[in-house]
Amino acid sequence: MSPSQRGKAVAPSDKEILERLEKLGKKVANLILKEKPPYLEIPVRTLSNTIWDKEKKILVLGPRRARREFFDIGESKRFMQTILMLSLIVRARREGDYPTIRDLYYTGKHTIYYVDERGRKRSEETWNDQRESNAVIQDIEVATGLLREHMGIMHDAKGKIVGNVIIRSKGYDIDLSRMGSGAYAIPPNVDRLEIRRVDADYVLVVEKDAIFERLNEEEFWKKHNCVLITGKGQPDRSTRRMVRRLWEEFDLPVYILTDADSYGFYIYSVYRSGSISLSYESERLATPEARFLGVTVTDIEKYKIPRNYIIKATDRDIKRAKELMNYPWFKESKAWMKELKLFIKKGEKIEIEALSGHGFKFLSHVYIPEKIKKKEWIV
Amino acid sequence: MSPSQRGKAVAPSDKEILERLEKLGKKVANLILKEKPPYLEIPVRTLSNTIWDKEKKILVLGPRRARREFFDIGESKRFMQTILMLSLIVRARREGDYPTIRDLYYTGKHTIYYVDERGRKRSEETWNDQRESNAVIQDIEVATGLLREHMGIMHDAKGKIVGNVIIRSKGYDIDLSRMGSGAYAIPPNVDRLEIRRVDADYVLVVEKDAIFERLNEEEFWKKHNCVLITGKGQPDRSTRRMVRRLWEEFDLPVYILTDADSYGFYIYSVYRSGSISLSYESERLATPEARFLGVTVTDIEKYKIPRNYIIKATDRDIKRAKELMNYPWFKESKAWMKELKLFIKKGEKIEIEALSGHGFKFLSHVYIPEKIKKKEWIV
Repeated sequence: MSPSQRGKAVAPSDKEILERLEKLGKKVANLILKEKPPYLEIPVRTLSNTIWDKEKKILVLGPRRARREFFDIGESKRFMQTILMLSLIVRARREGDYPTIRDLYYTGKHTIYYVDERGRKRSEETWNDQRESNAVIQDIEVATGLLREHMGIMHDAKGKIVGNVIIRSKGYDIDLSRMGSGAYAIPPNVDRLEIRRVDADYVLVVEKDAIFERLNEEEFWKKHNCVLITGKGQPDRSTRRMVRRLWEEFDLPVYILTDADSYGFYIYSVYRSGSISLSYESERLATPEARFLGVTVTDIEKYKIPRNYIIKATDRDIKRAKELMNYPWFKESKAWMKELKLFIKKGEKIEIEALSGHGFKFLSHVYIPEKIKKKEWIV
Repeated sequence: MSPSQRGKAVAPSDKEILERLEKLGKKVANLILKEKPPYLEIPVRTLSNTIWDKEKKILVLGPRRARREFFDIGESKRFMQTILMLSLIVRARREGDYPTIRDLYYTGKHTIYYVDERGRKRSEETWNDQRESNAVIQDIEVATGLLREHMGIMHDAKGKIVGNVIIRSKGYDIDLSRMGSGAYAIPPNVDRLEIRRVDADYVLVVEKDAIFERLNEEEFWKKHNCVLITGKGQPDRSTRRMVRRLWEEFDLPVYILTDADSYGFYIYSVYRSGSISLSYESERLATPEARFLGVTVTDIEKYKIPRNYIIKATDRDIKRAKELMNYPWFKESKAWMKELKLFIKKGEKIEIEALSGHGFKFLSHVYIPEKIKKKEWIV
């Protein structure tokens, strides 16, 4: 894939963000002013409207859109929830506030008292749990084409990064090669960072934080001129966005290092192709050329992993691996089909740390550099 | 407590660390060379040997020590595990490696084949799971007075920090006020950092990462001249060590902000007094003058939290609160006894985010600064 084919997701300006949010509300207001039944038009976020874009190699949202009508009794609650959430987000943007998703849940939560058609006093909560309020945030994301990060909505951020990278944020140039034993904690909204300069040959994404800490303490990234990132297990949106931007803007190869098990393979899959629940964001979050460096099932033989380091795969692991075999991006890869079949056949998994059987230095001095040099990754 | 009473835990040098580890091994070697039965003397880490030091206001390990005899059949396995782990750690220190606790587990894991007293071929694993290998790491910690961080052992690190603080690590001066929207990820071994300068009036520790992100995005720490830290829920050792050092070395008041529930109260308790399982480390990790800023149960009334923001406490919450009432540092505090009794009586809890009912700015513009100004924390 040439850089020009990748597309480039430019973050909208603060002004544009507010305008897009207000536009959504104005549409509804105009319908009401014209005495027409108000509705919202929202792209459908279900699995049936999730498409594998073979060319872009990512999961994307299909073309289906649904009308959410205020006068449809089955939809009026969700309609009102969406408008309520929209008003909270617009207010926060106008006043420069940065509420968390939980703040939005609480601020919007209240009891509506009403009299029903038989004259009985009734009450209803605007929402009962955060799943409901999060779902309408997602609806607003797809309806406006904005990510919640753009809307200034805060959430946990798990990612860490070090390497020869200079970013600019809030007027400061931050040199990610000068973090010492620590690291730069990736903020929730990566699009507010400017990545000014990168001097590195590749990006190494490690599943586990402890491995990240170890490679950082050894200054692996300095010796091998790479950018080191961890998303601490299943990565959050910010970490995925950071990896994507390094690939998209700086044309860096991206290698993923996880345990050799279904969970690790799925982590690679999310970095590379996106997840079904967030398919509308793949274009911004997925890195379709990410390469799986290991640990592979074939490595167990190849690197003569001692028998007692090997863990028996659970039924759940096997079931998950079978599911992965149906994902189009695994299906169309011979190397992956071989790995997954071997995993299911042998029913064996290993962790990255099992490589320490060959000495503490084996991972950083032999395994990673050799695999990259010999192009032994799989995609 | 005056700063001189606090004691100061100075990190040992690399040379001293290796010497202390070798000393432990040499003791055993000398016994063997003198043809005496080898043993290790290890301080007892159980609850029965955990003492509440009223003066220092922290949990400490009592004076009891136990002999671990090689020739005692009930102890020989643990004896051998300890020596095995010690040899791995010494090797790593000599060779400048930074294994994770999981690496140590794998590297030490192997099968010992032997013939038993009846001539049968038998085999035994050095350890079967990481709990066993972690336990001997803790034994080595108490036997040498070194923390695993001193021994270069890596592990996950959850903490984040921002503020007017300059630290020095690996030859770099790192200015924690220039992290932009991101933060400085606290490394596993905080004792390898030098805290060069702090220009702040207090330390604010927030339980939740999302709240940290929000306060950071608002630059709360800049406006209120404080250091902002999160340990993401139950804090890890590194975050606790960082908080302790800011208090110990810079005489800063420390405020803890958590949800109003037993889990949040316990987080405060761990920051302040230490945990039973790590009581031997309290002197380095606990901050006995930490203050609980909120959210308190009394706040529910005081700040007129809407009824539908209040969550019913579970049986587990109540049970936990009753346990807390027996902890000496809660027991000797009138304010805490009042809070805990109220919590148990009302059976109600709230989250920090419930304060957003008064507007997104309420937490940072009103709640935190007012509570500090009016000295409305509890200890």
